[in-house]
Amino acid sequence: MLTVDEALARLLAGLGETDVERIPLSEALGRVPIDAPLISAHDVPPFPNSAMDGYAVRAADGGVVRPVIGESRAGGPPAPAVEAGTAVRIMTGAPVPDGADTVVPIEDAEERDGVVTVAAPPRPGTHVRSAGHDVRRGDAVELPRGPLTPSVIGLLAAMGNSDVEVHRRPRVAILSTGDELRPSGASLGHGQIFDANGPALAAAVIEAGGDPRLLDPAPDDPAVIGERIRAGLEDADLLIASGGVSVGEHDHVRGEIERLGTLDFWRIAVQPGKPLAFGRVFERAVIGLPGNPVSALVTFELFVRPMLRAMLGLAGDGRLRVRARVGEALGKDAPRRAFLRVRVERDADGYRAVSAGGQSSSQLLPLAWANALLVVPEGLSATEPGASYEAILLGAVA
Amino acid sequence: MLTVDEALARLLAGLGETDVERIPLSEALGRVPIDAPLISAHDVPPFPNSAMDGYAVRAADGGVVRPVIGESRAGGPPAPAVEAGTAVRIMTGAPVPDGADTVVPIEDAEERDGVVTVAAPPRPGTHVRSAGHDVRRGDAVELPRGPLTPSVIGLLAAMGNSDVEVHRRPRVAILSTGDELRPSGASLGHGQIFDANGPALAAAVIEAGGDPRLLDPAPDDPAVIGERIRAGLEDADLLIASGGVSVGEHDHVRGEIERLGTLDFWRIAVQPGKPLAFGRVFERAVIGLPGNPVSALVTFELFVRPMLRAMLGLAGDGRLRVRARVGEALGKDAPRRAFLRVRVERDADGYRAVSAGGQSSSQLLPLAWANALLVVPEGLSATEPGASYEAILLGAVA
Repeated sequence: MLTVDEALARLLAGLGETDVERIPLSEALGRVPIDAPLISAHDVPPFPNSAMDGYAVRAADGGVVRPVIGESRAGGPPAPAVEAGTAVRIMTGAPVPDGADTVVPIEDAEERDGVVTVAAPPRPGTHVRSAGHDVRRGDAVELPRGPLTPSVIGLLAAMGNSDVEVHRRPRVAILSTGDELRPSGASLGHGQIFDANGPALAAAVIEAGGDPRLLDPAPDDPAVIGERIRAGLEDADLLIASGGVSVGEHDHVRGEIERLGTLDFWRIAVQPGKPLAFGRVFERAVIGLPGNPVSALVTFELFVRPMLRAMLGLAGDGRLRVRARVGEALGKDAPRRAFLRVRVERDADGYRAVSAGGQSSSQLLPLAWANALLVVPEGLSATEPGASYEAILLGAVA
Repeated sequence: MLTVDEALARLLAGLGETDVERIPLSEALGRVPIDAPLISAHDVPPFPNSAMDGYAVRAADGGVVRPVIGESRAGGPPAPAVEAGTAVRIMTGAPVPDGADTVVPIEDAEERDGVVTVAAPPRPGTHVRSAGHDVRRGDAVELPRGPLTPSVIGLLAAMGNSDVEVHRRPRVAILSTGDELRPSGASLGHGQIFDANGPALAAAVIEAGGDPRLLDPAPDDPAVIGERIRAGLEDADLLIASGGVSVGEHDHVRGEIERLGTLDFWRIAVQPGKPLAFGRVFERAVIGLPGNPVSALVTFELFVRPMLRAMLGLAGDGRLRVRARVGEALGKDAPRRAFLRVRVERDADGYRAVSAGGQSSSQLLPLAWANALLVVPEGLSATEPGASYEAILLGAVA
């Protein structure tokens, strides 16, 4: 059996990044910018401006009385230059006129009959934001690595960019397999169940930054499965199948991956999960996840999510981790690393984790209620009450 | 001055929830389901099924040798009923035939010439997942409060739902005001700057679960501002203006809100931020944020994000909070609660926070790099080196 870390390292090896596209800022939230500094075409701010409403003056003039020779307001016409012993009325954000080096706030000044009296000699430079004090024209601006946030989008706009270069979202074909599967909304016959993996994995692909293409579920027929894989990869960077990777005689996903390309089949020391098929078909990665929805979603989280992020140039899974105390002994399979479905809550001492329900890999309700996966290491057969474990946060914490 | 909490309580008072719409699961990620239990139309799983590949038997028969009278596989034809002293070959997930109550795994059995020998008498019920063991037909299933996740979508699909009832996203009109504003991508004349607030607030609205409508920036002209507010509210539940809420003579947003409806103008003990206008026009909320992008984004986070979530039936801001140690003395205005722009990192002792750059409210680059707002309470004039403060996480933590 491979460890979780060994399996992940193999999956990530040699994975290429998607190509680059330019998109408008209005579509940029959550997209991943390329890892290259952006040369600013402008100073931010573009001109020295006032941090206060007040009077633009020369500090060297000291505390004298000054005639007010004009006004500078944001977006208004240019104000006259401030010469020795004069002042220009100025609004917050407005350009500091030529000659002035300091702004006296309105509350430290008194204007009467076109003349302003300043309470005390101003310190040079006070309340003036210099041109480029945030970003200088020609600066190579690094953006934080990760999906674009509102504030990075604001920065890009302030620099004059109306669009941004990002990695194309990886296109992911999703194929559920099994004679028993029916689409949700249909009726069920003998021995049939609804396909939960297709809709759930499509959502998980979007959440990871990818662009899902949900294929019609395939019956346990090698010809149909092979054709779905072939057709699905025509318009995808990656294909995720679920089901059909066990050892049963009706499990055809592995066989079809092998027939069309190359296949590795791994048993991984992970709970839930264990079998995982990984192949290459037409130079593209194909992953065969377990058919069980809980195992499929957890192995997606552990293995496929980091792959999609790597294709976007990002490291890791992008999830926040906290240490969380557990009050109960939650059993697990000792040789495997377990990812238990828990609800993490904040309390006075930090975080605590409570089982979200049954830990059977056939129970989707507890996974739906879990906001975290609790990582319990290999070697333990249960959590130790009172001990803390790493929790991978999947959702909001109350 | 109002405290942050007082201002927020007033903003949230009497805010209505948006109406309900039914959407397909393929569009449901991140949408907010209504707060009502869902009656399951099906058992999940719909029939008792096997957790293993093996043999379906009657446990009461004990450790006898059994003729194999048929096969049950997932999605296959019905297997014959298991009568006393017989067995049916069964695959993982396949229906447990009538009469059988137990599955003997393949590794504990040996089949030869149509007869299976079981190593030891099986315990009744072993490896059988009963019908409805995850969700029973007719159960009132509560969904976790919050945006829909992949696993909740999987649960909905497993219950047979192809769509889900969610709150309509609040429609939010966004209006930047100021004679100095130019759209990004344009060229700048004397005293002009690019509009950062429009694109940044539109992204913040999406992130909070809303549906933004970015209006053309308005010059400092009361007639234009009034018309933009009026037109913007024709197709919005809420309007956010930025700029024009200060005390300057060119600040017309307050006046126009007052002319069209009712207005409260508050000074809030918050840094950055302070002035905030809140009004009602045509029965809809109108918020006037500061014009400065850092102040606009931080006040959006503190005040508008919780409003949009309340309109979706959700409490709070949905952000994770951690305690983070600070090594430096970061200055602030003592009477106000400060939200400092920091980078939070995980270390052996928990989390630490480092200033993301200058804390001036005119600096967008540090906000873009910040992954958290550090909450430093009223009364302090600086952070105390070595002390821990609450950090509101806005982005990924390394």
